[in-house]
Amino acid sequence: MLNAKLALATNSEHQTVVKLSPAVAFGGRELVIIGGPCTVESQWQMETVATRLKAAPLQALRGGVYKPRTSPYSFQGLGIEGVEILSQVRSHYQIPVVTEVMSIAQIESIATSVDMLQVGSRNMQNFDLLKALGKVKKPVLLKRGLAATIEEFVMAAEYILSHGNSQVVLCERGIRSFDNYTRNVLDLGAVAALKQLTHLPVIVDPSHAVGKRELVTPLAKAAVAAGADGLIIECHPEPEKSVSDARQALSLEDMVKLVDSLRPLAAVVGREIVGSPNISHLAIAPR
Amino acid sequence: MLNAKLALATNSEHQTVVKLSPAVAFGGRELVIIGGPCTVESQWQMETVATRLKAAPLQALRGGVYKPRTSPYSFQGLGIEGVEILSQVRSHYQIPVVTEVMSIAQIESIATSVDMLQVGSRNMQNFDLLKALGKVKKPVLLKRGLAATIEEFVMAAEYILSHGNSQVVLCERGIRSFDNYTRNVLDLGAVAALKQLTHLPVIVDPSHAVGKRELVTPLAKAAVAAGADGLIIECHPEPEKSVSDARQALSLEDMVKLVDSLRPLAAVVGREIVGSPNISHLAIAPR
Amino acid sequence: MLNAKLALATNSEHQTVVKLSPAVAFGGRELVIIGGPCTVESQWQMETVATRLKAAPLQALRGGVYKPRTSPYSFQGLGIEGVEILSQVRSHYQIPVVTEVMSIAQIESIATSVDMLQVGSRNMQNFDLLKALGKVKKPVLLKRGLAATIEEFVMAAEYILSHGNSQVVLCERGIRSFDNYTRNVLDLGAVAALKQLTHLPVIVDPSHAVGKRELVTPLAKAAVAAGADGLIIECHPEPEKSVSDARQALSLEDMVKLVDSLRPLAAVVGREIVGSPNISHLAIAPR
Amino acid sequence: MLNAKLALATNSEHQTVVKLSPAVAFGGRELVIIGGPCTVESQWQMETVATRLKAAPLQALRGGVYKPRTSPYSFQGLGIEGVEILSQVRSHYQIPVVTEVMSIAQIESIATSVDMLQVGSRNMQNFDLLKALGKVKKPVLLKRGLAATIEEFVMAAEYILSHGNSQVVLCERGIRSFDNYTRNVLDLGAVAALKQLTHLPVIVDPSHAVGKRELVTPLAKAAVAAGADGLIIECHPEPEKSVSDARQALSLEDMVKLVDSLRPLAAVVGREIVGSPNISHLAIAPR
Repeated sequence: MLNAKLALATNSEHQTVVKLSPAVAFGGRELVIIGGPCTVESQWQMETVATRLKAAPLQALRGGVYKPRTSPYSFQGLGIEGVEILSQVRSHYQIPVVTEVMSIAQIESIATSVDMLQVGSRNMQNFDLLKALGKVKKPVLLKRGLAATIEEFVMAAEYILSHGNSQVVLCERGIRSFDNYTRNVLDLGAVAALKQLTHLPVIVDPSHAVGKRELVTPLAKAAVAAGADGLIIECHPEPEKSVSDARQALSLEDMVKLVDSLRPLAAVVGREIVGSPNISHLAIAPR
Repeated sequence: MLNAKLALATNSEHQTVVKLSPAVAFGGRELVIIGGPCTVESQWQMETVATRLKAAPLQALRGGVYKPRTSPYSFQGLGIEGVEILSQVRSHYQIPVVTEVMSIAQIESIATSVDMLQVGSRNMQNFDLLKALGKVKKPVLLKRGLAATIEEFVMAAEYILSHGNSQVVLCERGIRSFDNYTRNVLDLGAVAALKQLTHLPVIVDPSHAVGKRELVTPLAKAAVAAGADGLIIECHPEPEKSVSDARQALSLEDMVKLVDSLRPLAAVVGREIVGSPNISHLAIAPR
Repeated sequence: MLNAKLALATNSEHQTVVKLSPAVAFGGRELVIIGGPCTVESQWQMETVATRLKAAPLQALRGGVYKPRTSPYSFQGLGIEGVEILSQVRSHYQIPVVTEVMSIAQIESIATSVDMLQVGSRNMQNFDLLKALGKVKKPVLLKRGLAATIEEFVMAAEYILSHGNSQVVLCERGIRSFDNYTRNVLDLGAVAALKQLTHLPVIVDPSHAVGKRELVTPLAKAAVAAGADGLIIECHPEPEKSVSDARQALSLEDMVKLVDSLRPLAAVVGREIVGSPNISHLAIAPR
Repeated sequence: MLNAKLALATNSEHQTVVKLSPAVAFGGRELVIIGGPCTVESQWQMETVATRLKAAPLQALRGGVYKPRTSPYSFQGLGIEGVEILSQVRSHYQIPVVTEVMSIAQIESIATSVDMLQVGSRNMQNFDLLKALGKVKKPVLLKRGLAATIEEFVMAAEYILSHGNSQVVLCERGIRSFDNYTRNVLDLGAVAALKQLTHLPVIVDPSHAVGKRELVTPLAKAAVAAGADGLIIECHPEPEKSVSDARQALSLEDMVKLVDSLRPLAAVVGREIVGSPNISHLAIAPR
């Protein structure tokens, strides 16, 4: 059905591996867990997250510095100041960092400071941005649009691949539905379908999908069981004070518990969370 | 938000157990797997399924005898003849049987021959049917409507509960969405939410949700990881010859493999599939 | 695409006319406007509506006596008492009456007292009810399901037609969508499609579609312009006191204004609202 | 509900008028009809459209030169060559021209050659593009996203307004739904709601909404009856040869007929199509 040429798997063994660092790669046996706040708010915040969670272990940190907000009057992100915070935390804690890029003009400054460029749901079919990311030598995390079909999602990846960048990871993050009890509906059928259709790694964002922190853990487990190559999960040192998406962020303690609960599940489906948990000795950075 | 009085859990330990037989119950530690064809087609078909799968083990058999079909010209089910087949297989193989009831008039004859009455998605808000099932002493399997909100689903159960029948099991079976790559979208966020909101057992039908047999197994695993109390899965001795939903039925061999693959996963989330697999000595019934 | 045999138009002139009374028919040049409350609450209420609106003119009255409510604890309708109110108003004011039938058991008593039996959205695929209505000699108003495709809608009509009743009117009443600013989304593309696909009359319910009274009039106009054969609109003597759907009912004064505003529009698209307005001399019934 | 500051109407008389030329303005008594092909394919094509339709009369021409296509292998538009064709036709036929801008880099060259810049559905929440358009002195035609809520749509306009450009026209073009019988579902309830909520002109694109040319005319009429300030409709000299969206384009003859059929309808709802039809003397440009 799809006229993709580069994104489709030619056989069931065909699997692209996307490396964030020598130690962290999507698409292999390793389950990659990315954690962090929706929005980078301060150096203290990001250092606290890194200090507490690197040894959970998380494999990468997330944090938005340019934020796509429904209202022009909502906080739009720290911008360059946020990029610098990410850059410092990345080098100090030796942990890969992911952040969203909203326009072509932001690519250059961000690409040198982080390990992976995220395309947000609202930009999944911002084709000029996709083409520009096709010319960058950085992995791209492509989030599914709010109402994108599986075919449109694969073809959006094809835009990046066909412009020269083969390092694309797909991310299912919930689709729009008629019921607002949960924020969106996590479509794990799409994850299973994408794992068969394409050779690209597929990860899941249960936080944005469900929008309520008490439902994140069961959906994170479900995603791993369905075959996801990784997870991206919102967490915050003080969730109820988060400047955005406060309702869905986990506390750092709950994030640690989630990683612990995923370890045996990952093993059952042939996956591994690299690194042993090593939390106890870590002090929280002073504010 | 919900003005349900009987369906809501009063605390996190509050859990109803619905028994199909002395050995089979929903809502406890046991993971209940119901398998069988969409439609009862013949005695041979149902005996083959029972012979091959009882020791998989499956905990219950399904098979439709009154079929809600989009077209009046499609096969509408074997009716009473099908009820008799179910009744015979049930007593001969000592395995509980589930079938759909489409109208009040069918309740009496079906209720004496099977162990659980299913309300299909299209009838989730057939309130007169729900009221009538509230007066029956049989467990009810209530499937979520194609576009029912979580609130409407819980309130449909409340209709049955408030009319006197407390033996209700909820079933998530996929909701309508904009993408027809999969038949529906399996909403595991709803499963997680329902497990927290209500004290009723919640099971999942991955077959109708996804509509393609190659995607059933990952979604069945995801459902168990998300906390489902059971699964209902279509399988058929000759899937491609099925009179309905041929595209989504598993072969009996694949059904056995699926149960095997669920066993370690169930264990990791604190569940158990009762009975050890005991397939090898079973001969297929002659046609 | 559809395997309907009886519902499809064989050419662009093929049009069924469904008569409610010698003076009122759907499917001809006449635009049929049905008005009245969501729920029959009292004799005073229905007489007030009839007194004020018969000369608007409305062609028929609506009012629910068996109500499909999400919660079992919500008012379920006056039942037989309501049927008697409808029957009296119908004979006293000589105006056709439409009401919903929710189950097979209600058909007989209702069918003798009203002029048209409505199948509600939640029962559009209650196939046993449809089959039973196929054997009744009364026009049926079939409302589209909340998430029914055009094909499923036509096939639901086919159930009634193929069981012997050719007097079916289709009603588009809004479908479920992701935005809850309006209650549902009125799908006038479906109205245009159904007018071309089938020979059955097609009417529109803008009240349930949009759920806000201030938006009913523009959608009623749009429906007429799109080719609808009639409208069914909620109105109430005291809208804010309505026991159900209070937010969407028009006042009787606004209902009169709406009919007035539709008259020139109907003329432009080749339709006519039969009867000249004759409101001034009508006294309101004493309470 | 909305925290928009600039887009909301302060009272029912509050109405912005957006001028495309001295003779063509959205938001007044005049109904503005924009016609033309999905994609600019050649000078001959655009001249044919202008020659035949200017006197229909159409008030403005549309034609895409940068095309957002699902697949990177589909024709992406003529680019600068297409801008030149638009510019020539615009000056030769003295008719305003509208075209889509997909990225910030395209704004400058396009803005000097056309009269209105369109933001496509896929870019409705491309916030950096919206901010950039807020600094341009050209009217913007903002299309609703495929699954954008009314609130999100208004807030997208607010991005443009709050960055300095008050010349914004909203366009409803159908939303995603579960039924693919029509391409999308035209949401005229949103049009009625937007006319009450905001002071911005609101137009409708029935072609993309329904995706089948035989359904365009009834929906165009419905849009006018619902209160739309204008229409944007696809038409093509040889519809079946169109490089994109061939299934929904009207022939030029049908486009003329549509305008004719809208004239009396517009009058009934207090609108006017400026200019009298003057088709007969117009010769088609030689190919």
